[in-house]
Amino acid sequence: MVINQLTINETRLSNRIHELAKVGKIGGTGVCRLALSEEYKVGLKLVQQWMVDAGLETKIDHFGNLIGRLEGKYPDEPVHMIGSHIDSQPYGGRFDGSIGVLGGLEVVQTMQEHNIVPERPVEIISFCDEEGHRFGKGLFGVRGILGKLDPDELERTDKDGISRKEALTTFGCDPNRLHESEYTLETIGSYLEMHIEQGPYLEAKDVSVGIVSGIAGPLWLTIELSGFAGHAGSVPMQLRNDALFGASKIITALNDIVQTDLDAPTVGTVGNLEVFPNARSIIPEKVRFTVDLRDINKERRDRYEQQLCDCITNVANENGLQYEIREDTNTAPKYCESEIIHTMQEVSKQIELDIPVLMSGPFHDAIVMADACDYGMIFVRCKEGISHNPMEYARDEDISIGTELLLQTTINMTTSK
Amino acid sequence: MVINQLTINETRLSNRIHELAKVGKIGGTGVCRLALSEEYKVGLKLVQQWMVDAGLETKIDHFGNLIGRLEGKYPDEPVHMIGSHIDSQPYGGRFDGSIGVLGGLEVVQTMQEHNIVPERPVEIISFCDEEGHRFGKGLFGVRGILGKLDPDELERTDKDGISRKEALTTFGCDPNRLHESEYTLETIGSYLEMHIEQGPYLEAKDVSVGIVSGIAGPLWLTIELSGFAGHAGSVPMQLRNDALFGASKIITALNDIVQTDLDAPTVGTVGNLEVFPNARSIIPEKVRFTVDLRDINKERRDRYEQQLCDCITNVANENGLQYEIREDTNTAPKYCESEIIHTMQEVSKQIELDIPVLMSGPFHDAIVMADACDYGMIFVRCKEGISHNPMEYARDEDISIGTELLLQTTINMTTSK
Repeated sequence: MVINQLTINETRLSNRIHELAKVGKIGGTGVCRLALSEEYKVGLKLVQQWMVDAGLETKIDHFGNLIGRLEGKYPDEPVHMIGSHIDSQPYGGRFDGSIGVLGGLEVVQTMQEHNIVPERPVEIISFCDEEGHRFGKGLFGVRGILGKLDPDELERTDKDGISRKEALTTFGCDPNRLHESEYTLETIGSYLEMHIEQGPYLEAKDVSVGIVSGIAGPLWLTIELSGFAGHAGSVPMQLRNDALFGASKIITALNDIVQTDLDAPTVGTVGNLEVFPNARSIIPEKVRFTVDLRDINKERRDRYEQQLCDCITNVANENGLQYEIREDTNTAPKYCESEIIHTMQEVSKQIELDIPVLMSGPFHDAIVMADACDYGMIFVRCKEGISHNPMEYARDEDISIGTELLLQTTINMTTSK
Repeated sequence: MVINQLTINETRLSNRIHELAKVGKIGGTGVCRLALSEEYKVGLKLVQQWMVDAGLETKIDHFGNLIGRLEGKYPDEPVHMIGSHIDSQPYGGRFDGSIGVLGGLEVVQTMQEHNIVPERPVEIISFCDEEGHRFGKGLFGVRGILGKLDPDELERTDKDGISRKEALTTFGCDPNRLHESEYTLETIGSYLEMHIEQGPYLEAKDVSVGIVSGIAGPLWLTIELSGFAGHAGSVPMQLRNDALFGASKIITALNDIVQTDLDAPTVGTVGNLEVFPNARSIIPEKVRFTVDLRDINKERRDRYEQQLCDCITNVANENGLQYEIREDTNTAPKYCESEIIHTMQEVSKQIELDIPVLMSGPFHDAIVMADACDYGMIFVRCKEGISHNPMEYARDEDISIGTELLLQTTINMTTSK
C-alpha cells in the first residue's frame, strides 16, 4: 500500500491514544473504563481538555456524552458528526472505540491547522456506554440523543445495585434534563465512525484500512431438538432418535448454506449448545442450540434462513425428532450511504490507497445513527481480529491511515468542491 | 411366535416377580432396592424363603450374595450357575435383574417337580450390588466370588459416609471372611443369565426373547478439539477455526462409519459434549466430547476406531484445529460360548420359537463370569427399551418364554442326552 505523506499529525494522534490508555489501565496493555465510572470521568475530562486545546467548543451532555464542536461557515446547517466511544469492556483493550473519538478530534484539529473551514458544523462525539457491560444494555448515549431510550432505562442497576439514574447524577449529569440533550433529526446531516475491525479480514488481505459497506443485521434463533434417550449400548443405530446427531447435521448444513456464494460476507455461527442428559452412555434426548446468522443483504439472509429451516424439518423427520425454532432477535442490516462509500473510494485514490469494502458483523454506535442520517464507517486492521481483550492491538500507522481517510472524507463532505 | 405348552409354572413365576416388586416399591411401578439396604435385605430373605420352599440348600455369603443350590448326581462336578441380581437403581424398575434370579429359581423348582436330577450341581445366585449406585462401583458380588475386588474396594463410601465394609457388617456379613466365599475356577462349569434387553431391538422385531451373542466391549474416548474464538459477526467463514463445526463433522461421520455394515450390531454414540466459551455470538474455541463405540466384533471395532481417528485428523487439518484423543476405557467384547448359543437354538426349535441372536450393549454380571467359564445369556423383550426407570416393563408371557428357554437349556446342559 503506497500512500502520500499524511496530512494529519501521526505523532500527536498516537501519543493521545497511548495517554488515554493509561486511564483505567489493567495489566500491561488492558483497559477497564466502564461507563460513568471514575476512570471514565478522568478519561472523558482528558479528551475534553484536548478538544479545548484544539479550539473546539465542548460540553458533556446529560447522557454522559462528550461533544466537541467546530463551528461551520453556516452554523444552522445540519451537523456533520464524527463519533465513537471511550468506555470499555471490563477486560478490554486500548483501541476499541477510542481511536474513533481521538481520530475524529485529530481530523478537526488538522482542519483548523490548515485553515479549512467546513461549511456546516462538525461535531466530535464520544458516546456514553456503547459497550453496555455495566447496566446490561449498551448504545446508551447514542440512543439518548435520538430520543430512543426505553421507558425503564434509567432504573437498570449495575452489580452493586447502583441505578443508571444514580450513576448519571453522581457523574454530574441531570437525569431530569435529558430532553435538553436530544437532537432533532433535521439538525443532523451525516455521521462518520472509524473503529478497529474486530475481525481478521483486513489482516488476511494485508491492508491497513477498509471501507464498511454496512452493519450486518443479526438473526438470532434458538433451536431445540427432542428425541428419545436410550442406552448407548443397546439401541441399534436404525432405531435411534439422537438429538445431538440431528444437531450435528444441522450445524454442518448451516456451514454449507452460508458459503453458497463464496464472495458474499454471510456468516452463520452456532456458538452455544447444550445437551441433555449429557451423559457418556446415554443417547442425547434433547439438544438446544443457538444460530447467529448475519448478512448485509437481507434478501439473501432471509433465503438462507428458509434453507436452514427446511434443513431442520428434514433432519427432524429423518431422525424422528421434534423441533422448535424460536426467533430471539431479527435486526435488519444497515447499509452505509453509497455516496459516502463512493466519496471514501475517491479520496483514497488521491492518497493512493487501494481499500477493500467489507461488512461489519459487530454493532457500533453507527447502527443507531443509521436511522437518523446517512452514515459511513472506516475499519482499521487489528491483530488477529482480537478485541474485547487486553491483547487487542492496532498499529499506529494503520490508525493514522484510517484517520487520514476520515479527514479527507470529512473535507470532501463539508467543503465546496 | 408359536410355542408349545410351557413346562414352567407361569403363574408362580409371575406372582413372585410382582411380590418382590413390592419390596422397596416407589410410586406405582418403581423400585428402589439399593445394595445392602434394608429393602435389599427384606427382598433377599423373601427370595431365600422361596428357594427353601423349592427344596434348595441356601446361604447368604460374605459378599451379600444369595446362593440356592440344587445338588447334582455328582456333587463334585463343576457347578452350573444361573444368576443375576435383585438390587436396583435408585429410581429403578421391577424387572432389571430380578427376572434372572426368579427365572433361575423357577428353572430348578420345575426340574425338582419333574424329577429331573442334574448330573452336576445347579446354583441360583443373586449377586450383590450389580448396579453399583450406592458405592459408585458395581458388579461387586460377582467380582467377589472370583477374587477380583480392588484392594480399596471395602473403603468406598455411600452418600452418608457409610463404607462398604460397614454396610456388609450391618447386613450380617463378615468382611474379614470374604475369602471363604470365593470360588476356585475349576469348581465353576458354566453360567447362564436371563435379563431384560434394556433396548428396543426385540420389540422392533416383535419377538418375546432373544439369544445373546455376547456382551459388547465398549471403547470410551474423550476428544478435545481446540480452535480459535472470534466474533460471530466479524470472522469470515473461510478464516474460522470453529471447534463445534469440527465436532459436528466428526459426529456425523461416526454415524456413517458404524453403519458401514447395516447387518452388524455396531453402535457409536456421542452422549456428552461441552462447548467453550458457549456464548451465542462467539465462535466456539474448544469442544470436548465423548465417544462410546461398541461391537461384538473386536476387529471391526478396531477398524472403525481407526476410521474415526483418521476422520478426526482430517477434520482438524481442514479446519485449523488442534486435537487430543484420550482413551478412557477399552474393554474387549465377551462372546457367549457358541456351543451354548447352539444349544439354545436347538431347544428353541423344540418349543417352536424362532429366536433372533443379538448383541448386548450394556454390562451384566455375566461379563465378569465370562472370564471364569463358558456363559450364555437370554434377553427378554422390554417395552420401548426403557430401563433404569419405573416405566420399565416386560410382559409376564415374555418372561415365561425366556424362563422356559432357560429351563430347557439348563436341562440340556446338565443331564445326559
